[in-house]
Amino acid sequence: MSQKKTSLPSGVRDMHPSSLMLREHIITTLKRYFQRYSFMPLETPAIESLHTLMGKYGQEGDQLIFKILNSGDFRKRLTTDFLSVSSRSAVEQVAEKGLRYDLTLPLARYVAQHSGQLVFPFRRYQIQPVWRADRPQKGRYREFYQCDIDIVGSNSLFAEAEILALVHEVMQALGLKDCMILLNHRGIFQALATTMGIPNQEQMLCRILDKRDKVGDEKVIALLKEAGCTQHAIDAISWIFNPIPDNPQAQLFLLQEKLGNNPAGEKALEDLRVIYRYLNCFNLENRQLMFSPTLARGMDYYTGAIFEITSKASDIGSLAGGGRYDQLTEIFGLKDTSGVGISFGLERIYDLMLANNLFPLQVAITTQLLIIPMLQEAEKISIDYLVKSRQEGIITELFPYSHHLRKGLRYAQKQDIGWVAILGEEEISSHYISLKNMRKGVQKKCIFGEMINLLKEK
Amino acid sequence: MSQKKTSLPSGVRDMHPSSLMLREHIITTLKRYFQRYSFMPLETPAIESLHTLMGKYGQEGDQLIFKILNSGDFRKRLTTDFLSVSSRSAVEQVAEKGLRYDLTLPLARYVAQHSGQLVFPFRRYQIQPVWRADRPQKGRYREFYQCDIDIVGSNSLFAEAEILALVHEVMQALGLKDCMILLNHRGIFQALATTMGIPNQEQMLCRILDKRDKVGDEKVIALLKEAGCTQHAIDAISWIFNPIPDNPQAQLFLLQEKLGNNPAGEKALEDLRVIYRYLNCFNLENRQLMFSPTLARGMDYYTGAIFEITSKASDIGSLAGGGRYDQLTEIFGLKDTSGVGISFGLERIYDLMLANNLFPLQVAITTQLLIIPMLQEAEKISIDYLVKSRQEGIITELFPYSHHLRKGLRYAQKQDIGWVAILGEEEISSHYISLKNMRKGVQKKCIFGEMINLLKEK
Repeated sequence: MSQKKTSLPSGVRDMHPSSLMLREHIITTLKRYFQRYSFMPLETPAIESLHTLMGKYGQEGDQLIFKILNSGDFRKRLTTDFLSVSSRSAVEQVAEKGLRYDLTLPLARYVAQHSGQLVFPFRRYQIQPVWRADRPQKGRYREFYQCDIDIVGSNSLFAEAEILALVHEVMQALGLKDCMILLNHRGIFQALATTMGIPNQEQMLCRILDKRDKVGDEKVIALLKEAGCTQHAIDAISWIFNPIPDNPQAQLFLLQEKLGNNPAGEKALEDLRVIYRYLNCFNLENRQLMFSPTLARGMDYYTGAIFEITSKASDIGSLAGGGRYDQLTEIFGLKDTSGVGISFGLERIYDLMLANNLFPLQVAITTQLLIIPMLQEAEKISIDYLVKSRQEGIITELFPYSHHLRKGLRYAQKQDIGWVAILGEEEISSHYISLKNMRKGVQKKCIFGEMINLLKEK
Repeated sequence: MSQKKTSLPSGVRDMHPSSLMLREHIITTLKRYFQRYSFMPLETPAIESLHTLMGKYGQEGDQLIFKILNSGDFRKRLTTDFLSVSSRSAVEQVAEKGLRYDLTLPLARYVAQHSGQLVFPFRRYQIQPVWRADRPQKGRYREFYQCDIDIVGSNSLFAEAEILALVHEVMQALGLKDCMILLNHRGIFQALATTMGIPNQEQMLCRILDKRDKVGDEKVIALLKEAGCTQHAIDAISWIFNPIPDNPQAQLFLLQEKLGNNPAGEKALEDLRVIYRYLNCFNLENRQLMFSPTLARGMDYYTGAIFEITSKASDIGSLAGGGRYDQLTEIFGLKDTSGVGISFGLERIYDLMLANNLFPLQVAITTQLLIIPMLQEAEKISIDYLVKSRQEGIITELFPYSHHLRKGLRYAQKQDIGWVAILGEEEISSHYISLKNMRKGVQKKCIFGEMINLLKEK
């Protein structure tokens, strides 16, 4: 049969047991901290209406949404000019549903739809796959997990601080000790734009400064000029390209000096001051916090503080990122519901932990003991041992083919099973087990209790 | 804004925190036992190629698969006779991918695709949603979770016994004490068909007997007649409608008497004997096992033993069901790979546990303690208590609005938070906490350690 028959569409992948067990370790750890911080789980369906999804992620986003063909004969509702209408109209004629593109929009839809039953602030976490019809590349998939936490319906800046404290703590728990929180505020862009004399072009500024990490300062300045900024305007904000002092007091002082005379700047500064004060109460050290005036976070919906978590020891990029949004639920008719959230980059956290050997050994679940009954008469006692060994928490298998010792040992070797218990005629009549240490190649006689103790020690 | 804007497509649903926490309890319990029995996790993508999915679930199944519209302008590859070709050809022109319909076919695809790297028997569990474009009804959704375990690449009947022992043990762990295993074998249908003089119509027999639970014996007999069976033929198998003896020895004896002279019946009988023998070693009691000659399991791919787990105390139907399949991976080019698997009905297990109050109290995670700082000066100590309380494993929140005691108490009430710690001017200066028991409405003064001990007791 052809290879084609057993392949996957491009951009999606199987998650093999060996890597999935490591991913589960990350997810279990995240969930434990989420719950400790009073975040409760939420899941929304993979399938949403296209009228919920479309027009919310920009024109490019609209194209990247996977659309689901209407059931039945989808041709029945085509208009006669179907072939000549716009691509979007054509899609609307054959598809009413699409796949979830992120977890933020479904959250907004959920909160607006159920606002009558929810108690605010609503604190939820959500860990589910999302789908994007992006061009597949190394490390970029069309189906990948997102992991978000949000506090919706609170305008207290304590929410920002709490989320950052949580992220910091869970990163420590995962072994990512050298994490760093980068902070900025959308008001800073507004203030910068005013300083440059282009008060309404904050979005442009945001979009261009967002590229700094990828393309460098020179290219960013060139892009600003292309967008119509004068040299004079660029000079007025040139301080943002200079090194930023590494302690919060000095950072706030710098901001006060540069943008304090601007209403948007003043508001941003005041927010950052409060957030720093709270973070200080959470015992976050100064060296773990960094104000970054060019941190932009692409999403249009952010209105207040924005933040990213990076690793100082790696150039892997942001491990988590988020911010405050004031109008997210408005598109679904629910006003005055400010929220703040953060999204974890599970893939990057996984890659970084793998590269730095941070997964605990016991996370990779493998069979520890294989029991081989050598003849049918040994089956009853072998199954008995199997049940008891499992009850003792030892991951145990039974090799169910009598008279196939060599096959059983080969299986143990291939599966990397450390111990094999052999039960033959002699063993049964003298009530012991022949226990083979597969790694050392040695074998000894013992009774069941000894075997269990030995395996528990290891 | 109109209601329509914030609604979901029909047949899909949000999973609210309160029910999701209960579902997570089931899934966590299942996973713990799966791993103890050496089953490792696998995930396959939601999106599979349509050529993988189509033609495998019958004609009705093909229609129920959600198809994904090709990206870009999907009209570009339409043939000129697009409007007059068959519905299936039309679909093929605009869609190349579809959503996962179950977890069995992706498993077969996975095993065939990666057979070179896998060690057999391959033991995996998989818990993921599947999608079916079914007509939505009460309790039937278009997106729902499946939970499967399989042992692929072993023809030992020990695999059947092990899976049944696992299911039985995990049901006990969930509190479903009165579970019952129903067993049958596809060879029985072959033997019955031969007895009836219609040796090649085993599939028809299987399909009709499958309806017995829903429609009753009389209707089944009427359906058999409609399908062309004579009264004489039906009389020859009438024993299957009689009560079956409730102990395995008598069941096997009955089978021997009725079908033992038929090769297929003999083979089925021999398989069942071995499975009973193994189950006996697993200490499954006779009263927990029941041979059921009309248990059919709709799926065409079963070739050997088939089984279902039901609750004796409820008519909710099957809580899990599965069987042996010999040719499943052959459609993907991998021959001689027999396997056995079972699928858990998560929705039904959830419903049954809910109806019988079987969820442990601590499964519903809620905030236990709310800390209210009454003025800004109380923030530092309040956050300090928040951090320490969380470290002690107490789910704690802080109400971040100074001077809003009443609002804070109302929040605690709505969220059903049992305890509120109030920190005002007086409390700070005298180093104590005013702790309010929200359920009893009483308040007392204590220090932090006392509060933690009190909450841990509860």
